[in-house]
Amino acid sequence: MAGSSFGTIFRITTWGESHGKALGVVIDGCPAGLELSENDITPYMNRRKPGQSRFSTPRKEDDSVEILSGIFEGKTTGTPISMIVYNTSQKSHDYSEIATYYRPGHADYTFDEKYGFRDYRGGGRSSGRETAARVAAGAVACKILAQLGITVSAYTTSIGDISIDYDNFDKEEIFNNNLYMPDKKAAELASQYLQDTSKAGDSAGGIIECVVTGAPSGLGDPVFEKLDANLAKAIMSIGAVKGVEIGDGFEVVHSNASKNNDAFVMKDGHVAKATNHAGGILGGISDGDMIILRAGFKPTPSIISTQQTVNKNHEEIDISVKGRHDPIIVPRAVVVVEAMTALSILDSLLINMTSKLDNIIKFYK
Amino acid sequence: MAGSSFGTIFRITTWGESHGKALGVVIDGCPAGLELSENDITPYMNRRKPGQSRFSTPRKEDDSVEILSGIFEGKTTGTPISMIVYNTSQKSHDYSEIATYYRPGHADYTFDEKYGFRDYRGGGRSSGRETAARVAAGAVACKILAQLGITVSAYTTSIGDISIDYDNFDKEEIFNNNLYMPDKKAAELASQYLQDTSKAGDSAGGIIECVVTGAPSGLGDPVFEKLDANLAKAIMSIGAVKGVEIGDGFEVVHSNASKNNDAFVMKDGHVAKATNHAGGILGGISDGDMIILRAGFKPTPSIISTQQTVNKNHEEIDISVKGRHDPIIVPRAVVVVEAMTALSILDSLLINMTSKLDNIIKFYK
Amino acid sequence: MAGSSFGTIFRITTWGESHGKALGVVIDGCPAGLELSENDITPYMNRRKPGQSRFSTPRKEDDSVEILSGIFEGKTTGTPISMIVYNTSQKSHDYSEIATYYRPGHADYTFDEKYGFRDYRGGGRSSGRETAARVAAGAVACKILAQLGITVSAYTTSIGDISIDYDNFDKEEIFNNNLYMPDKKAAELASQYLQDTSKAGDSAGGIIECVVTGAPSGLGDPVFEKLDANLAKAIMSIGAVKGVEIGDGFEVVHSNASKNNDAFVMKDGHVAKATNHAGGILGGISDGDMIILRAGFKPTPSIISTQQTVNKNHEEIDISVKGRHDPIIVPRAVVVVEAMTALSILDSLLINMTSKLDNIIKFYK
Amino acid sequence: MAGSSFGTIFRITTWGESHGKALGVVIDGCPAGLELSENDITPYMNRRKPGQSRFSTPRKEDDSVEILSGIFEGKTTGTPISMIVYNTSQKSHDYSEIATYYRPGHADYTFDEKYGFRDYRGGGRSSGRETAARVAAGAVACKILAQLGITVSAYTTSIGDISIDYDNFDKEEIFNNNLYMPDKKAAELASQYLQDTSKAGDSAGGIIECVVTGAPSGLGDPVFEKLDANLAKAIMSIGAVKGVEIGDGFEVVHSNASKNNDAFVMKDGHVAKATNHAGGILGGISDGDMIILRAGFKPTPSIISTQQTVNKNHEEIDISVKGRHDPIIVPRAVVVVEAMTALSILDSLLINMTSKLDNIIKFYK
Repeated sequence: MAGSSFGTIFRITTWGESHGKALGVVIDGCPAGLELSENDITPYMNRRKPGQSRFSTPRKEDDSVEILSGIFEGKTTGTPISMIVYNTSQKSHDYSEIATYYRPGHADYTFDEKYGFRDYRGGGRSSGRETAARVAAGAVACKILAQLGITVSAYTTSIGDISIDYDNFDKEEIFNNNLYMPDKKAAELASQYLQDTSKAGDSAGGIIECVVTGAPSGLGDPVFEKLDANLAKAIMSIGAVKGVEIGDGFEVVHSNASKNNDAFVMKDGHVAKATNHAGGILGGISDGDMIILRAGFKPTPSIISTQQTVNKNHEEIDISVKGRHDPIIVPRAVVVVEAMTALSILDSLLINMTSKLDNIIKFYK
Repeated sequence: MAGSSFGTIFRITTWGESHGKALGVVIDGCPAGLELSENDITPYMNRRKPGQSRFSTPRKEDDSVEILSGIFEGKTTGTPISMIVYNTSQKSHDYSEIATYYRPGHADYTFDEKYGFRDYRGGGRSSGRETAARVAAGAVACKILAQLGITVSAYTTSIGDISIDYDNFDKEEIFNNNLYMPDKKAAELASQYLQDTSKAGDSAGGIIECVVTGAPSGLGDPVFEKLDANLAKAIMSIGAVKGVEIGDGFEVVHSNASKNNDAFVMKDGHVAKATNHAGGILGGISDGDMIILRAGFKPTPSIISTQQTVNKNHEEIDISVKGRHDPIIVPRAVVVVEAMTALSILDSLLINMTSKLDNIIKFYK
Repeated sequence: MAGSSFGTIFRITTWGESHGKALGVVIDGCPAGLELSENDITPYMNRRKPGQSRFSTPRKEDDSVEILSGIFEGKTTGTPISMIVYNTSQKSHDYSEIATYYRPGHADYTFDEKYGFRDYRGGGRSSGRETAARVAAGAVACKILAQLGITVSAYTTSIGDISIDYDNFDKEEIFNNNLYMPDKKAAELASQYLQDTSKAGDSAGGIIECVVTGAPSGLGDPVFEKLDANLAKAIMSIGAVKGVEIGDGFEVVHSNASKNNDAFVMKDGHVAKATNHAGGILGGISDGDMIILRAGFKPTPSIISTQQTVNKNHEEIDISVKGRHDPIIVPRAVVVVEAMTALSILDSLLINMTSKLDNIIKFYK
Repeated sequence: MAGSSFGTIFRITTWGESHGKALGVVIDGCPAGLELSENDITPYMNRRKPGQSRFSTPRKEDDSVEILSGIFEGKTTGTPISMIVYNTSQKSHDYSEIATYYRPGHADYTFDEKYGFRDYRGGGRSSGRETAARVAAGAVACKILAQLGITVSAYTTSIGDISIDYDNFDKEEIFNNNLYMPDKKAAELASQYLQDTSKAGDSAGGIIECVVTGAPSGLGDPVFEKLDANLAKAIMSIGAVKGVEIGDGFEVVHSNASKNNDAFVMKDGHVAKATNHAGGILGGISDGDMIILRAGFKPTPSIISTQQTVNKNHEEIDISVKGRHDPIIVPRAVVVVEAMTALSILDSLLINMTSKLDNIIKFYK
């Protein structure tokens, strides 16, 4: 079905396969009057682009975005913003073998089951390349959020067994290392671990954390459209994510209410919380505090090491997935987590404008 | 906004507050021809009902469901099924105090911020009582799934620091203890832990796991409507859930692809997987294997122990939340997790019918 | 599928059959802070109620609405408003015959084809009685619109060949005659025509016009969600409607742009239109002028006169639909047209709040 | 808001302005396995293309469509089909004047009111050029419908006061004249009328009728998602449409049930209707008969004749809309009506597959 759209008011629709002519996104419902050009998008695209470090594939992907509609005299017009990324350097000559079998950990088998066949070139629609479209849309969402004083920032907290030390948390460090880790020492250890893993023909997983600052209270709805429920969907819709947490996440299982409940206190004349175990969301609605989420990513499924699988003739075979693949998905996914978070927060901000009758009356007077 | 609906084809809309006249659910899009009566719903409602054990509140909630529409001569007609549960035993005389302050860990503050005021009686719309409506709808979904050979089964795997031993996993045991744990020994330890916690005026968290057997491959869509993304939203929309995992979940972070990838093998002439780290979902689409998810629940926020908070006059005060509250949410939430999982799976089954042109042509011939 | 909901932000879901226990509506997304009680709904229900005149069936339908949720201390809380109407006086003993054949002009045959069987008592879900739920929801929408200075008013302009004379248009007269015609003379002629038609065992059709005053410019979207497109769907979703027009409607076919284009002029310092052939909508967006639409209703299909049809055994038979039926649907449908119009306008008002970035920034500052 | 999408299962999203770089459409939810190439789209695009006759603007619009995604080895893959049409010949140097005032009958004023400003070049997003994207998507829908034995055919029945004579209805004639009229004599009269109108610096309106043959019974839902309601929205969302009718439409007002009710009869062993006043839809659900609808189009608002209007400085001025404009919208809109009808019918076909439990069980066995 129509499963390529996300959002209710600020709604994006992505399209395109890894090795087709192009991929892109249509943003429908972007408010009018935002100054916007390709220059706002490029920095985000660059963070996702491969070849940025030795831990991302040296394949050259030209990720320059072109805006095709929805902008006039430098500003959004309120009509759909169509953005396109051409697949200039994709070649499909390497994929004849992959066409014949099901790579473990990939969507090859499930696509065949669902659709009867698949575009097997580079993963087709289920390629991580699809996230380029999300990042382009996320850049627009981030620009709007910035004008409302809201920032969205993601970074790596764990790679394999190596985690950052929150006592050494250094925001500046995030962009200083290839792994986007806010802890220099952890980044060095993780880097060494990834080299070893890569040499062993294997790959690693990791955790990305994302924080939203400046979000007002009141975002999200009490039942199915809880802010955390929508964030969970947003993040779990990123390929390779196998777990999502809000605030203290699964750690709450080991806590008690006397510790886990965040006491309300007065700060500078405003209601605030003494702690933030909740991650900024209570009853599905933002409480004005920092919103915190985490996503657990599985190791890149494509590895050189020999794996057992089945081919389309239903014969058991051994394979080795050739080509140069990222030994870890996480660093390039950091900006994708940021994008999906920003899209969710922005949509909830727009929806929230109609929650009180007084506000509606004020608006139309 | 309209945040009380869930699902696309099989779509439910819940309504009602904890201490209003009634609560209920409208199921829209239920296929015609299903034999259905209140008797199909009651067993599910009973599992959620309070007062079943010493770990659930002795408040008497009359959870009998009445079907008001959508059934004729014992069968669903294809039109909306409206179900109602009257709040016969709710009393609101205890809530005058709660009206004046914000309970930590509850949605009191965020409701006031979003809507300007709130129905403070028993949590109002954000009360766990809302889940009664989900369970009623989930019972219908489960009945349909059963006719397709699909079972959905949830149980408790952890309470506080006590977890089941999967080597002792005993399916039969689930309904033998008040905590719905498939491990008798763990259940006994957890029971003792909860008594201690309760005596200390505190509460505990836990983990619920849910498995789906018999689901065909092909459910879910490749991008935003991934099966796991929708399950994540479904489960995170349950109050008190702070984390959701699919398959091995966050454990994949500590694994490598050589271990985490599930090898495809032939079993009884069919493609199958040698292991199931993926939890039955690859690239957002079910692979025919058992679907596995887990949810982490926070400790019940209402506790007798003194807590710090703020009242509506913005004064810092100390409170103790009176009344008898469950020292843990988990056991009563087991059937809620089952319900939300069943609703998600059923909706994806209906949507999936249109994925191949050949099937559509066959259907209309 | 889930076809019983209408609206995006202010979203209603109706349920119930003509002869089930009850019918009702859930309003999800109603803004918080609206004073609301059953007293606001009753006047609207009374206008739809049968037995108000000799042209509506003398069957007693008890249409008193009970609000079950979403109101606290007399005000809407922002959570779903569930309203129920019990079918106290329905009896199903008359319907054994109807069960066996397909009434011409009714949905009997199409229900059987779609769902395999049907609740044949009084039309079941396709009974006009379903509109009681729409009217209840429409009353809430109208109350909100009134606070924004917007009025919605429908009336009958034609019955059979008898049409009102716009030169004699008398707003006060609408509620003075049973047919809701704003022209006393036309109402008298139509009344006589209906008596004759009824005596002949036949029934008549008619036209309802609806005007919205005070709606701001800017409502509706440029492409698929045009305000007129949504109004057309809203109105065509009322049973028996076979045509919908905006402004001059089909008359524009006989006009030329030099006459049909409405000149912009300045009035009291504001941009206005010299005429209103457009009916207040240009390019799918409201222009600040009066919004005008019309709906053409077919004659009540249930008539005493002998008709040819087919029974479930596929035998051609002659039937006469017994019971006392309205010789015309129009008068009772006037308030339904009002309701559907109000729901559409309100939803577009809420959606429109996010069209300009400046407004969003102002809102959150 | 996100108003550029249409459909639920087979969902299209259009984007692009008249004078931007390009326009296009993303089809999401197209079933896998359909053979598809640009050659399937071109014939439909050509029918909408300007310059086909003296009654359409001689502006050269290059309407060649390029498919960018969703096709592999000549077949749809089930993933989004992105189609683009470049605006190669658009020039914007003529629009400086239009930027300063509001053209009567156009969306200039309402866009400014809604969004604060507008892309004034050639109508921007509200240009008829947007329908090129609809036609491209409609061509895909038509190809699928054809495989199910369903045809969708639109034609002109009236231009100004000249209507076809149904007794002379000649299907072959539709493509023999520039006006797509199925009556040669009427086409000649209309052609003369249009020449006169054009010479007078004015423009004309008309009526398009559309018939669907081969559609099975059971399409559409009983309440808000009635097949006719969705068709009404689909058609009214085409710019310049001011009225929509199903079957006999507004004529039913002048009929009685004894004539207007279609008797059920047996034909070749199947239930059929002796007449088809209903236009193939009863109670919102298709009855297996031919589906018939009609749309009334207003005269092209752009005319050479002097018109009164207001400029952005709120001064009343006289204008003459320069450039060569179609003296009538209708002929080029015929294929747009076909497209929107096909999209609606196809979506309802896909949705209908889940209406009966038996069918679902059969599907998954």
